[in-house]
Amino acid sequence: MNKSNRSANQRFFAVIPAGGIGSRLWPLSRASAPKFLHDLTGSGQTLLQDTWDRLQPIASGRTMVVTGNVHAQAVEEQLPNLDLANIILEPTPRDSTAAIALAAAVLAIREPDVIIGSFAADHVILDDAQFHKTVQEAIEVASSGKIVTIGLVPTEPSVAFGYIHRGARLQTKTACEVLNFVEKPNIKIAKQYVDSCDYFWNAGMYIAPASLLLEVLSKTEPELYAGVMQIAKAWGTKDQESVMNKVWGTLKKIAIDYAIAEPAAKQGIVAVVPGEFEWHDVGDFASIAELQSQGRKGNLAVLGAGRVLSDSSSGILISDTGRLVALIGLEDVIVVDTADALLVTTKEHAQKVKSLVDVLKQSGHSELL
Amino acid sequence: MNKSNRSANQRFFAVIPAGGIGSRLWPLSRASAPKFLHDLTGSGQTLLQDTWDRLQPIASGRTMVVTGNVHAQAVEEQLPNLDLANIILEPTPRDSTAAIALAAAVLAIREPDVIIGSFAADHVILDDAQFHKTVQEAIEVASSGKIVTIGLVPTEPSVAFGYIHRGARLQTKTACEVLNFVEKPNIKIAKQYVDSCDYFWNAGMYIAPASLLLEVLSKTEPELYAGVMQIAKAWGTKDQESVMNKVWGTLKKIAIDYAIAEPAAKQGIVAVVPGEFEWHDVGDFASIAELQSQGRKGNLAVLGAGRVLSDSSSGILISDTGRLVALIGLEDVIVVDTADALLVTTKEHAQKVKSLVDVLKQSGHSELL
Repeated sequence: MNKSNRSANQRFFAVIPAGGIGSRLWPLSRASAPKFLHDLTGSGQTLLQDTWDRLQPIASGRTMVVTGNVHAQAVEEQLPNLDLANIILEPTPRDSTAAIALAAAVLAIREPDVIIGSFAADHVILDDAQFHKTVQEAIEVASSGKIVTIGLVPTEPSVAFGYIHRGARLQTKTACEVLNFVEKPNIKIAKQYVDSCDYFWNAGMYIAPASLLLEVLSKTEPELYAGVMQIAKAWGTKDQESVMNKVWGTLKKIAIDYAIAEPAAKQGIVAVVPGEFEWHDVGDFASIAELQSQGRKGNLAVLGAGRVLSDSSSGILISDTGRLVALIGLEDVIVVDTADALLVTTKEHAQKVKSLVDVLKQSGHSELL
Repeated sequence: MNKSNRSANQRFFAVIPAGGIGSRLWPLSRASAPKFLHDLTGSGQTLLQDTWDRLQPIASGRTMVVTGNVHAQAVEEQLPNLDLANIILEPTPRDSTAAIALAAAVLAIREPDVIIGSFAADHVILDDAQFHKTVQEAIEVASSGKIVTIGLVPTEPSVAFGYIHRGARLQTKTACEVLNFVEKPNIKIAKQYVDSCDYFWNAGMYIAPASLLLEVLSKTEPELYAGVMQIAKAWGTKDQESVMNKVWGTLKKIAIDYAIAEPAAKQGIVAVVPGEFEWHDVGDFASIAELQSQGRKGNLAVLGAGRVLSDSSSGILISDTGRLVALIGLEDVIVVDTADALLVTTKEHAQKVKSLVDVLKQSGHSELL
């Protein structure tokens, strides 16, 4: 699979899996308008557009998006330069392995030596130059026959992420082998990880030859592999839709970390390149508020159309409506104002939004999800 | 003026001045839809309707409403039994003396021996039987040639109200003479008032022969008196509208406490009947929240159309919209959700809403006032 006449960079093709609702960002993020379709940074662009733009310098004209059927229109509107040959629409969500493996298989049929890099549509990365440098190195290492993940250097002992346990340095600039992947730890273990300097946050960014990903998958999840290959072979033919509709729903739902990355790490073919760029997963409103307040403490942060009168020196207002929002005497407040639902909470309680969404599900408020 | 063949009760006519925006209740209360047009108690009726209903047992078919031109339609809709001969529409607000004196003059022309009782449209009274008993005594005392005010027995040393200083007991059940009226005190003085048992809260309820009110006014504010009489004489004639439009705007803006009650107290013709019913002026959202939480502590109070998911054990949600409101981790919170404006604050800061409205005025948001 390493036999290629093209340079590693020429072989590179970016894949953006654009899925996941982001329950902790309700009522902004909905099944019909998930996290990646929103501007959560105040950049004036959505997270999906930011992700797309960030990849263009290294994957111009070579970026594929995998998203839900229901988001097709929004994605095409937000990404006018996306070639329709490079969009895969999922009839239903089947988790990350199915999404990335299908992209890998479709691209590998077109270009057998392709190296794909998978980057979620809903992450915030604030240093493009450093990101490109890291991905370049990852592509280089991948071209030597590795599955490469980008490990975020932890800035705190977070319990919100899985970790990557690194081993010995490889023969390239900064890459190391990966000993194993570990689940979200408790705070005590997270501290040990961070203190040891041997662990990175796992942000699920994988760069690897598509053929290598598929080879690993064929051994770990042969049925899933076979289904993906069946769809990929029909892709671009008259049978594309019928095969997709027949097979997709049968594919096993499993995260790529379990189906490919961990088994491959056991085989000793996974490497990690440290990503020293500023990265945020903006998983809840508190993290958005923190991101927004950087460098301008002392004010309520405001995202969206909201007009606000406030004496708050912290917290965030996110508004989808043009309403005037008046806040008096509240600190660390989170107000999310949408046409049919309003959330008021505090940074301290931001994680509880997920349970609220569970309550909404159980109480039959599906129109609000 | 005391020569009458009718009993005191037969002479009684209730007047409801329905005015005042209630800035501390923004964004619920607006210039176009002030406090009295809202249900602030969860009774299923507006404060105006509650006031009307409360008066019917003692003033059936004998209740007049004085309100702004702009509220004519809302008032007529809310009070289908209001005889249109018994509504006075003010082209602009000219404070309480003009409103009550014009009602007194119009009624005195119809019935020279009429005793009027003035009861604001935006007060909450929770014990109708006791209220009626109190007003009955006030009517009786008034028929002896007094201006009678109802003094609320203070439940705390409030600095939000003016006080009534009582003197010697009269020859009736509970009435006393009034020595003088005093302005809103500071907290130290308020405590002295409450401890002395000689002071009542002044809720601005006056019961008196219309002719006596007008006689006092003719001496204290002769121009205002003359203007009011000019309008009253044209009332019900073809000149009503033209005289009203010509004269009303020239009337002095002055509260009835200053123009009539205080000067009359100096003459020794004012009495107070203690009102031992539960009374609330629901002046701000904190007082509405407290009123709502009585007897059902441990939950967020909800008024209006709001659907709510909340873990709060205190505070209040008032909603004009059908939106779902989700509150997480907030105590003593006040959320007021209207179509074009949202207020979030806490009970502690409820008084600051008035300053917010001032800021809105200054910043040109008149469409929200």
